[in-house]
Amino acid sequence: MMQLKRPVLLLDKAKCLRNIQKMISKAHKYQLAFRPHFKTHQSAEIGEWFRKEGVSKITVSSVMMAEYFANHGWDDITIAFPVNVAEASEINKLAERVSLNILIESHESLQMLTKTVNHSLGVFLKIDAGYHRTGIPIENQSEILALISEISNHKNLVFKGFLIHNGHTYSAKGKNEIQEIHGITLHKIRELKQFSEKHRIKSIVSIGDTPAMSVVDDFSFVDEIRPGNFVFYDVMQQNIGSCSLEEIAVALAVPVVAKHPERNEFVVYGGAVHLSKDSVLDNSGNQIFGRVVLLNEMGWGEPVGGTYVKSLSQEHGIIKTTDDFIKTVSIGDFIGILPVHSCLTAHLMGEYLTFRGERITTMLVMIQK
Amino acid sequence: MMQLKRPVLLLDKAKCLRNIQKMISKAHKYQLAFRPHFKTHQSAEIGEWFRKEGVSKITVSSVMMAEYFANHGWDDITIAFPVNVAEASEINKLAERVSLNILIESHESLQMLTKTVNHSLGVFLKIDAGYHRTGIPIENQSEILALISEISNHKNLVFKGFLIHNGHTYSAKGKNEIQEIHGITLHKIRELKQFSEKHRIKSIVSIGDTPAMSVVDDFSFVDEIRPGNFVFYDVMQQNIGSCSLEEIAVALAVPVVAKHPERNEFVVYGGAVHLSKDSVLDNSGNQIFGRVVLLNEMGWGEPVGGTYVKSLSQEHGIIKTTDDFIKTVSIGDFIGILPVHSCLTAHLMGEYLTFRGERITTMLVMIQK
Repeated sequence: MMQLKRPVLLLDKAKCLRNIQKMISKAHKYQLAFRPHFKTHQSAEIGEWFRKEGVSKITVSSVMMAEYFANHGWDDITIAFPVNVAEASEINKLAERVSLNILIESHESLQMLTKTVNHSLGVFLKIDAGYHRTGIPIENQSEILALISEISNHKNLVFKGFLIHNGHTYSAKGKNEIQEIHGITLHKIRELKQFSEKHRIKSIVSIGDTPAMSVVDDFSFVDEIRPGNFVFYDVMQQNIGSCSLEEIAVALAVPVVAKHPERNEFVVYGGAVHLSKDSVLDNSGNQIFGRVVLLNEMGWGEPVGGTYVKSLSQEHGIIKTTDDFIKTVSIGDFIGILPVHSCLTAHLMGEYLTFRGERITTMLVMIQK
Repeated sequence: MMQLKRPVLLLDKAKCLRNIQKMISKAHKYQLAFRPHFKTHQSAEIGEWFRKEGVSKITVSSVMMAEYFANHGWDDITIAFPVNVAEASEINKLAERVSLNILIESHESLQMLTKTVNHSLGVFLKIDAGYHRTGIPIENQSEILALISEISNHKNLVFKGFLIHNGHTYSAKGKNEIQEIHGITLHKIRELKQFSEKHRIKSIVSIGDTPAMSVVDDFSFVDEIRPGNFVFYDVMQQNIGSCSLEEIAVALAVPVVAKHPERNEFVVYGGAVHLSKDSVLDNSGNQIFGRVVLLNEMGWGEPVGGTYVKSLSQEHGIIKTTDDFIKTVSIGDFIGILPVHSCLTAHLMGEYLTFRGERITTMLVMIQK
């Protein structure tokens, strides 16, 4: 293992490339436009790995992230977040130099935005197909029609279509449940398509969630997919059934700082400011904040049985383990933690280290001295 | 209200100064050394507010944080985290230029550390008085004695005393429970002191938790206090009983991006990457990720009744509210969110904005373009 000093987010580049290639193949197979969400990795360099595979359109979650990727040569960007009208002038400036799409779900946002925008701007309607986080209910055809008509009346706005994020697949347990949720959504999308055709509305349907994009084989009536998390996957996705443990491409390397064999626990330097406080329940009903792997020169192995991150403080991680494993762990060893939610871990860490020793930066700058 | 564009962490400087002064007065009243934990604010500028009040000794949670504050003129620093031996050379370099204390809780750490250290270094033993996160059990006198003897044998190491973090006060419900937990700890500390005196060990006892430091009035056998969170407080501390809502000194300002009156919810641009995923249960048993306040030119008001952050995605916050309040909220408005855990929110945001429009930086650098 390389000489490590403190918590660092290890990236297995080969796994990451396989995840990217697999999703691209799937998009090709089903003739879907592929617009991956870059909020998971937030890195210009990892963006290049997508570009080499022919990707030219991306999704981001904020105006700042759009600016960052525009500065790194991306010129077809969807900001998949209900438009923040306070950033109307930044959006307008960005629309001048790249092909930009934003999300609208209300008359109010649209009105405020159009006071500022004087460059061509693509507009998706944010549609709620059952997740109920946000968006116009997919059944609310009169509202949808009214907004499309309003968009069409603005000379700088181009109506692009319907954007759906089926985030309720994140609470699925296994592939069958993911497929079931996805199937219900497809049925609703079909009606939306029929309604669009009836009103001669030219539009595409863009959907996004990593669980469904990873496991389903029916993309009827879908034109574009926007998964993000699949680039790294994580324990949550494996728990849902979206990926195997072998596909998880990041692990937080952390040093062991204390051992408590009397309760089969050890303490690592790696806490909530490294992993985030997201957790899942494992098969035994334990709330876990990560799974533990052994690191080697080339990557990491299978998760260690009976061993998991039990709790997190700001900088401490408490690992619950077994009689056998604790005997093999020494103070100063670095172990790996597969994160529960790789998007948040990547955001907190702000950079990656590959097994060839390359440091890969993100839009987030590291700690200053 | 100032012109805001995106989520920003507002800091009410007057409240923050009152929190600082109140804790300093308490330390004076009970003749306690005051070594505040700077991991909550992580800011050189806020550090100066402490210095102006006469503070000269600080606590940090990592070697990097120690380096940052050493670079800003702090020369008496305790790293209150089980020593990470992988950073032994950084610790040694730091010990050359400032008065540095570290934490030891095992023979192994001590052995590895002393291979590198050749400057004078203060050592505290990390003692577990009942929290059971880490540390040597306070009852384990033979282990304590063995380690002190080992420390004394190293010419560069100076045994300073016993460091306790009573983190189990964080699960207390109300002042009585905090006092009860603290009382049990004081009883154990008394025995530790008697034991030290019996063995003619010169030592101090340092304790740290914000809940107890905020509410108790018995500091028998305690020499030093190290609270950190009190500088800002938060919804968790108010929930525990450590502070009033009026004492919370930070609020995340976020723009409203979508409204869903049919379910009394609205969506803000402000998610897990701004607030962190820490949550508490409110009086009605709801899991909440923050409380909502109205912002004005000078600060913010009381939390809005029946209104709370119900869930967080990466960038979305979902606010549950009432029939009445949702009518008053418009797209584009900025509202305030009192964070559940201000340490993690401050870490994620990386800077503060005061109501005089001053931007206050931390050791964490902001997003690059």
